[in-house]
Amino acid sequence: MSNEKIPYKIYLEENELPKQWYNVRADMKKKPAPLLNPATGKPCTLEDLSHVFCTELAKQELDENTPYVDIPQEIQDFYKMFRPSPLVRAYFLEKKLGTPAKIYYKFEGNNTSGSHKLNSAIAQAYYAKKQGLKGVTTETGAGQWGTALSMACAYFDLDCNVYMVKVSYEQKPFRREVMRTYGANVTPSPSTTTEIGKKILEEFPGTNGSLGCAISEAVEAATTKEGYRYVLGSVLAQVLLHQSIIGLEAKAAMDKYNIKPDIIIGCAGGGSNLGGLISPFMGEKLRGEADYRFIAVEPASCPSLTRGTYAYDFCDTGKVCPLQKMYTLGSGFMPSPNHAGGLRYHGMSATLSELYDQGLMEATSVEQTAVFEAAEMFARVEGILPAPESSHAIRVAIDEALKCKETGEEKTILFGLTGTGYFDMYAYGAYNDGKMSDYIPTDEEIAKSIANLPKIEG
Amino acid sequence: MSNEKIPYKIYLEENELPKQWYNVRADMKKKPAPLLNPATGKPCTLEDLSHVFCTELAKQELDENTPYVDIPQEIQDFYKMFRPSPLVRAYFLEKKLGTPAKIYYKFEGNNTSGSHKLNSAIAQAYYAKKQGLKGVTTETGAGQWGTALSMACAYFDLDCNVYMVKVSYEQKPFRREVMRTYGANVTPSPSTTTEIGKKILEEFPGTNGSLGCAISEAVEAATTKEGYRYVLGSVLAQVLLHQSIIGLEAKAAMDKYNIKPDIIIGCAGGGSNLGGLISPFMGEKLRGEADYRFIAVEPASCPSLTRGTYAYDFCDTGKVCPLQKMYTLGSGFMPSPNHAGGLRYHGMSATLSELYDQGLMEATSVEQTAVFEAAEMFARVEGILPAPESSHAIRVAIDEALKCKETGEEKTILFGLTGTGYFDMYAYGAYNDGKMSDYIPTDEEIAKSIANLPKIEG
Repeated sequence: MSNEKIPYKIYLEENELPKQWYNVRADMKKKPAPLLNPATGKPCTLEDLSHVFCTELAKQELDENTPYVDIPQEIQDFYKMFRPSPLVRAYFLEKKLGTPAKIYYKFEGNNTSGSHKLNSAIAQAYYAKKQGLKGVTTETGAGQWGTALSMACAYFDLDCNVYMVKVSYEQKPFRREVMRTYGANVTPSPSTTTEIGKKILEEFPGTNGSLGCAISEAVEAATTKEGYRYVLGSVLAQVLLHQSIIGLEAKAAMDKYNIKPDIIIGCAGGGSNLGGLISPFMGEKLRGEADYRFIAVEPASCPSLTRGTYAYDFCDTGKVCPLQKMYTLGSGFMPSPNHAGGLRYHGMSATLSELYDQGLMEATSVEQTAVFEAAEMFARVEGILPAPESSHAIRVAIDEALKCKETGEEKTILFGLTGTGYFDMYAYGAYNDGKMSDYIPTDEEIAKSIANLPKIEG
Repeated sequence: MSNEKIPYKIYLEENELPKQWYNVRADMKKKPAPLLNPATGKPCTLEDLSHVFCTELAKQELDENTPYVDIPQEIQDFYKMFRPSPLVRAYFLEKKLGTPAKIYYKFEGNNTSGSHKLNSAIAQAYYAKKQGLKGVTTETGAGQWGTALSMACAYFDLDCNVYMVKVSYEQKPFRREVMRTYGANVTPSPSTTTEIGKKILEEFPGTNGSLGCAISEAVEAATTKEGYRYVLGSVLAQVLLHQSIIGLEAKAAMDKYNIKPDIIIGCAGGGSNLGGLISPFMGEKLRGEADYRFIAVEPASCPSLTRGTYAYDFCDTGKVCPLQKMYTLGSGFMPSPNHAGGLRYHGMSATLSELYDQGLMEATSVEQTAVFEAAEMFARVEGILPAPESSHAIRVAIDEALKCKETGEEKTILFGLTGTGYFDMYAYGAYNDGKMSDYIPTDEEIAKSIANLPKIEG
């Protein structure tokens, strides 16, 4: 099909929107290892998980075999507020690069949460409401997840309590105000509202907080208050299920124009966006119906797939969450100050870890300055100011397109543009001022952190 | 047509996008009064205007008779980057209000400039490039126009010099960084880079700057440097011409579904969005083909249409720009600190002023707290965090829909949602904290400012 026939943006019609999510685990012959109860060391039961998560979400977490899950009508209705997201042909970027490659991106940033996080937030809020809960608790670092959850809770009139890492709470007052505008209670973490928060404040009086601590506070708040559950924006299998809407829409839009991607690229922090984007394509690969190259892009400063180890580890620094087998740098790993807040997680989705371990997906890491260089180029030619997280995928998409320029290959590249960078202008400012630095942890640092993994076979 | 058949969002196909702008002045029997040269007091000639503006734009400014102007292919191509913008059926808002009214909004905020400003910025940058200029100069207050122009100049590789009101430069560092990311030079105004800036700094050493001063600096910079021209984001007839893309797309989308609006509502600062939105509908009204109610919404703190006078006045505080007959509060009018930065202009588009004077359009003013109340409600149900400027239109759309609830009338309401409020979180924060105040100028204040208008008949 000639270029001329493919529009700049492909929007699905409302009646073409997916009505089911896709659970990629159903097509995996070797499944991800089960979550373990940290108290017993045994696989988590529905009962174990239901103390922390909504029951329906706990069921989704444990269900490895159902390939398609109906999207409840209320969620489909909400999706229409901001979906379909456009599949964009990056004509301007291709021209700038002078590449014969055809570049597409699925843009998830055109909603007020600024990212794909809303896809799962609305689902988790829906099931909480359906269960008759009063509200939910969560943590947020960069703030995209907290914003998305605030929006979802406002829609279903649920109480929303967000523990925001203290340093972000103070440095990102605008993010905080967006959440407050949507009615959320935003508490800087560590706080005096939880036992674990008080304990940490006693031990480290001047601490700026950490995601690990905020998770622990949010879990404590959920499990000690009647009518509350804890929700999480990434890592979990349920989140990948909800985020499959990204890949399902992208695939439907590409199918409409007979486009078949050769390479599919996504940034990887906990794996929510990457997992969602690749799921239906990976399904075809797993079933032997088609082949694709998948590339996970992580920051060189927090390289769980490329330099971590595949083992059971805690999902949170406070060690209150279930244990998960995943590529990890160790739950005590402290990534260097890195502006791409959403990619600072020490571990990785168990599903993606298993796919990577089976050689079905590649991974690469990129340095921050190169990422912002790509972000700026992209912003200038495509007119969208990308989030630092998303820009990791842009960097590798550009690199692959430049390889095509050398070889003359007309490969089709699809990448996930997860969100916008409007609340990341400190980082852009540092780049504009030439003050951005790269940091790569040493082998010794990583080995030291990994040495402290819990001793569990799996 | 039943509600069920109308999707949440109507996107035109690429081949349905307008290929011409519409010049509403062509259908006005009584035209707006001509711009006057401040030095001679006579109508501006093409030569007069060409010293300040690009020649093609000066021609557009003076052309009252051509109804349709071809959109150059390069601009059409750029438009595809962020257009068509969606026409959204506000089902969620209707449900929240319990109104039988059908509410639609044309959403212009899904681009990095965050507003409709990009529609004219790309046109002005294109004509500057075509004329072989090195660059352009402009001023910016809230920053939407400066951002849009930066994006447009990056695309055409033009030098972009933005004089940003000093207080905004300091209070909105993120806006500044977006412009810098697009390669613009951003100078806090008043500055020592111009004679007028130096003079003002000598007279008022601690000044925070003003839009009037920034305009004067930008004009001086454009007219004293070889290869530069001055560009402006609102007020001018050329800007309304470019912005007609908003109304043309909205009308095409509505026509597709046989929807006819009864009421069309837009916020009004200088008039760029309102003029663009209503133009094609007003054309029908002027030609006697259809009737619509048009409502201009301005802030109670800066009420040029509702409390100003219709007379010749300076467009800038520095009094270097052409004189324009318009509804004005006087070029020396200082609006109270008002977070809706884009609606703080003392005057109004000459075209809209004349239409209002002829009774073809209504105007109303609203107070800030009521505006933010509407903004918050809208954000929570429609999932878009609106700009304070846009929220003036939301307020009146809600009020009209509530009137329908009382009367049971099923009116169709269309309003312009000009942009997003991501860079306005200080204002939202003040509202969230209950610290937002309303201010309405007294009759004496307005009379005093109007008493200083230049003595020109017209």
